[in-house]
Amino acid sequence: MTTIIKVGGGIVEDAASLDRLLNDFSFVSGAKILVHGGGRSATRMASQLGIESHMVNGRRVTDAEMLRVVTMVYAGLVNKNIVANLQARQINALGLTGADGNYLQAHRRPPVSIVNTETQEKETVDYGFVGDVDCCNASLLLSLIQQDVVPVLAPLTHDGKGSLLNTNADTIASTTATALAQAGEETTLIYCFEKAGVLRDADDDNSVIPHITSADFPQLVKEGIIQGGMIPKIENALAACRAGVKRVIITHANNLSQPEKGTVITLTT
Amino acid sequence: MTTIIKVGGGIVEDAASLDRLLNDFSFVSGAKILVHGGGRSATRMASQLGIESHMVNGRRVTDAEMLRVVTMVYAGLVNKNIVANLQARQINALGLTGADGNYLQAHRRPPVSIVNTETQEKETVDYGFVGDVDCCNASLLLSLIQQDVVPVLAPLTHDGKGSLLNTNADTIASTTATALAQAGEETTLIYCFEKAGVLRDADDDNSVIPHITSADFPQLVKEGIIQGGMIPKIENALAACRAGVKRVIITHANNLSQPEKGTVITLTT
Repeated sequence: MTTIIKVGGGIVEDAASLDRLLNDFSFVSGAKILVHGGGRSATRMASQLGIESHMVNGRRVTDAEMLRVVTMVYAGLVNKNIVANLQARQINALGLTGADGNYLQAHRRPPVSIVNTETQEKETVDYGFVGDVDCCNASLLLSLIQQDVVPVLAPLTHDGKGSLLNTNADTIASTTATALAQAGEETTLIYCFEKAGVLRDADDDNSVIPHITSADFPQLVKEGIIQGGMIPKIENALAACRAGVKRVIITHANNLSQPEKGTVITLTT
Repeated sequence: MTTIIKVGGGIVEDAASLDRLLNDFSFVSGAKILVHGGGRSATRMASQLGIESHMVNGRRVTDAEMLRVVTMVYAGLVNKNIVANLQARQINALGLTGADGNYLQAHRRPPVSIVNTETQEKETVDYGFVGDVDCCNASLLLSLIQQDVVPVLAPLTHDGKGSLLNTNADTIASTTATALAQAGEETTLIYCFEKAGVLRDADDDNSVIPHITSADFPQLVKEGIIQGGMIPKIENALAACRAGVKRVIITHANNLSQPEKGTVITLTT
């Protein structure tokens, strides 16, 4: 059984919450992989360097200068800090970007037409050095896991032509889980964030929906219980399940020791 | 046969010389490992962040802020740029710090008494987060090499208590070569720099001493042919040979395709 755990920037960038997360992570049984973000640190570092961060629909526009910043922050600062702190907990962590071992190859996203959620206007956005994943070399991860190594994945891929690319950490987590599932591993994918799970009432952490299946998801959307940014999150989770991942869990980072307290997403069958 | 190649910051930080080096490196036959520096980029990045670099006897004083900078620059910017550019040459590179896979554990260097080579005065220096290596986990590298992966090593170690440490790249190269030799690998260690080798006349690149053995080294020092910073470099090379490394070569980065044009250092026997 392999567990892939994705933690967002807000958790890994605060010393106390990172400490708690890594403690809980170190007690997760079986093979495990940690996928991290780091966007807030990147924004802060860019700002210190006089580089303005530009987000469109929650995604970072990554020009050449910003690519240097995210490479430093994600692959250097955040990733190695996590690795060293897991080593201190006797977890044999090893940090990787998608370039390392050709683990995740991607292509640069061409300019795309979007509706800007802020302005509600149509526009064409060139996200720059942002990568959409083409292939995942699961054999490297499997070999590391077999040696009791715990991969720690930074949200970067590469294009096979010498450039790194900025890639969404959620995508890296689901791509990894899917690739391992297709290689025959029983796989659980956990998204840790700052809420207790998928909530019936966004303001009430006690309103967690314990289980969502592919059968009841359309009804939950229809009733307006699941809306906004949670819809694509659950669509992606169900897609991962269809591709072989056993279950996806959305839970609070503080509940990593009991992830089932969050929302468990599976296929009906 | 495994070749460990160390390249200094001056080479990896210039796009044209890095390009040439990686081309030559990609044609080195057999198993290979690249060890890189990055000091000039770290100094530049620190300066952009308003952090002053402080060197004593050519070594960087690494306080907490500077540790963040070298972690970003060495493990992020320089390491991942090399890895991505080797991938573009079909070399399956994988970047590591000493924290990754617990590859190199070190302890923080206590304050040391030195003679400052600039002022010629005795002083006590606390180099801060600088690590002296305690142990090297060669089995991880051997496993990667057996999978045709090419490790790319950044000059960082860790203390096993959650902190990264700044460690000299020459030391990482010789420690790695020694550990592999002691694990039974036939090992060549190559130091690439901006001179053609160990020179009889520092200003004449045609005055390379082709071969130095442990037997003739004392005489070369006595005659004043080898002096200054080259003495500890060759002492370290001979120590690596005594520890099992087959040969150490000091050569110009442009001669990586024919490293024997530089100075070959071996034991007498």
